[in-house]
Amino acid sequence: MRIAVLAPVAWRTPPRHYGPWEQIASNLTEGLVSSGFDVTLFATGDSLTTAKLDFVAQRGYEEDKEQDAKVLECLHISNLMEKASRFDIIHNHFDFLPLTWSRLIAPPMITTIHGFSSHKIVPVFKKYNKTSHYISISNADRSRELDYLATVYNGINTAEFTFNNTPEDYLLYFGRIHHDKGTAEAIQIAMSTKRRLIIAGIIQDSNYYETHVKPYLGDQIQFIGSAGPEERNILMGNASALLHPINFKEPFGMSVAEAMLCGTPVIAFNKGSMPELIKHEETGFLANSPEEAIEAVHEIPKINRSACHKWAASRFSKEKMVSDYIKAYQKVLEN
Amino acid sequence: MRIAVLAPVAWRTPPRHYGPWEQIASNLTEGLVSSGFDVTLFATGDSLTTAKLDFVAQRGYEEDKEQDAKVLECLHISNLMEKASRFDIIHNHFDFLPLTWSRLIAPPMITTIHGFSSHKIVPVFKKYNKTSHYISISNADRSRELDYLATVYNGINTAEFTFNNTPEDYLLYFGRIHHDKGTAEAIQIAMSTKRRLIIAGIIQDSNYYETHVKPYLGDQIQFIGSAGPEERNILMGNASALLHPINFKEPFGMSVAEAMLCGTPVIAFNKGSMPELIKHEETGFLANSPEEAIEAVHEIPKINRSACHKWAASRFSKEKMVSDYIKAYQKVLEN
Repeated sequence: MRIAVLAPVAWRTPPRHYGPWEQIASNLTEGLVSSGFDVTLFATGDSLTTAKLDFVAQRGYEEDKEQDAKVLECLHISNLMEKASRFDIIHNHFDFLPLTWSRLIAPPMITTIHGFSSHKIVPVFKKYNKTSHYISISNADRSRELDYLATVYNGINTAEFTFNNTPEDYLLYFGRIHHDKGTAEAIQIAMSTKRRLIIAGIIQDSNYYETHVKPYLGDQIQFIGSAGPEERNILMGNASALLHPINFKEPFGMSVAEAMLCGTPVIAFNKGSMPELIKHEETGFLANSPEEAIEAVHEIPKINRSACHKWAASRFSKEKMVSDYIKAYQKVLEN
Repeated sequence: MRIAVLAPVAWRTPPRHYGPWEQIASNLTEGLVSSGFDVTLFATGDSLTTAKLDFVAQRGYEEDKEQDAKVLECLHISNLMEKASRFDIIHNHFDFLPLTWSRLIAPPMITTIHGFSSHKIVPVFKKYNKTSHYISISNADRSRELDYLATVYNGINTAEFTFNNTPEDYLLYFGRIHHDKGTAEAIQIAMSTKRRLIIAGIIQDSNYYETHVKPYLGDQIQFIGSAGPEERNILMGNASALLHPINFKEPFGMSVAEAMLCGTPVIAFNKGSMPELIKHEETGFLANSPEEAIEAVHEIPKINRSACHKWAASRFSKEKMVSDYIKAYQKVLEN
């Protein structure tokens, strides 16, 4: 089976720091190669892969701001579309835009919908609903207006995370600094429980950072900026819990799965995909209010870290994701 | 010959007020229908045409801001591309994006490059340089990196403009309120020559308007907002001259051609396509400095308004443009 994986070109694949879609495209590509498939990754030229790499631009438009994003996007997508006949299947991780070429090429296209940035993009998916194939990254993220081939959870490169049964006593916040991700709520939970909190992530909303984060920083609440893979592994494994008090219906929480893989339980607001990611009172806590999250902090010692690790390894590993996607490809090719 | 004309979907075709690309797409479409061709216009659903109309959205994204421009663009373009085999030729007025579908469809695509918004878009045109066909709207606007099929000047619907040999004594500025278009320079020329100036156009840069236009408004310098077709005809015909002191290499000056068609000479800065549009000292003046423009104002009575009209009618009419485009289509289809 000759597979083309179409990654976004905002960041390198895999990303240096932030870039969740590029991360999944990378984990999948490497896993498919390991499983013996003939894979070509369409990504930026500086991407790292054991697959064949095809590209039109050396660097992503977020890393080389001199580039015009729209120009890079259409050259990147058309580069694959013009070579489509070389592949048996095209796996699109690039949101809705590539779908609008899909009826002009021979091989089937599978699109992983990595969340809906807006309801305004749904019409594109609706147009191609009967002629293309969609994968949701959680059951919670499905649109009622679309048909899906399967839900495939994001898969972690488990080699990058070490199980740690003897954590330190801090709480961790890991994600973009933004209202959606609940940085302010995490600070309030840590302050109410008099626990130390380490905040790691890129500042996506600088007004939010100045207003809701910076005034609280000190010995108790620390902000360390964005963390690369090695630092992430240490930060996550050493945390007594990850705080994930999100203010939106998150389609999948990568850091939630990663933390559990390190053995670290997660205290999350009960929204979006969280009930699919966290086994309440076994691998963390689903809180329906800040008060419940505060209570949960006191319950952390009751969680068996080994159970967290096993749960995440069985459901959110790269190997599980690759195996699920291969099944999806076969299902499409058999039709 | 079955022709598909792809208009932009920012505005209605033809536009209610502003929308130069939509205006040309409309003039061409109506002219082709008059010439007996089988034409389908791909534009917004509220567009007015004697051709067949095909559309995916009722209104343009600039007129219904609830819509996502990127979504509307890709649905609009793919709607045509998926029907491409029904046409002998596709005429693209939608900039670079549709080119990236062009190798996946059977009929040839001709693209009118209505100016380069940035050098960053040139790589897309370069990629398709040998497999597609480009039309420049003036010789001045050609990129040295591209090959062109022809230059075809924008063509005016001459029925909308009345020759007027007995103008009033005001000067006219007609265009976007923006540094590029030289609104401030027009005001300075009018003030230096103690002439009345009427300014008509949409405010594209509101800071610029507040700083460089608003402080000068009064009896002598008047701003009347944007003008629709009927008001435009009256404003242009009654002006003793059009001031067009541009600060950029304008690829084509629609209002310059329109004013001349009304018999009104144009005083323009000698940049971009102006030497192709204006016959110096016969249909207006090409000024190399504000001083030369001020001198030119005093020379206005020397211009024969009938000569302006004849010049514009012979070179910049819809009929001339349609005839030139038909030749271009034939050239492509004969290859």
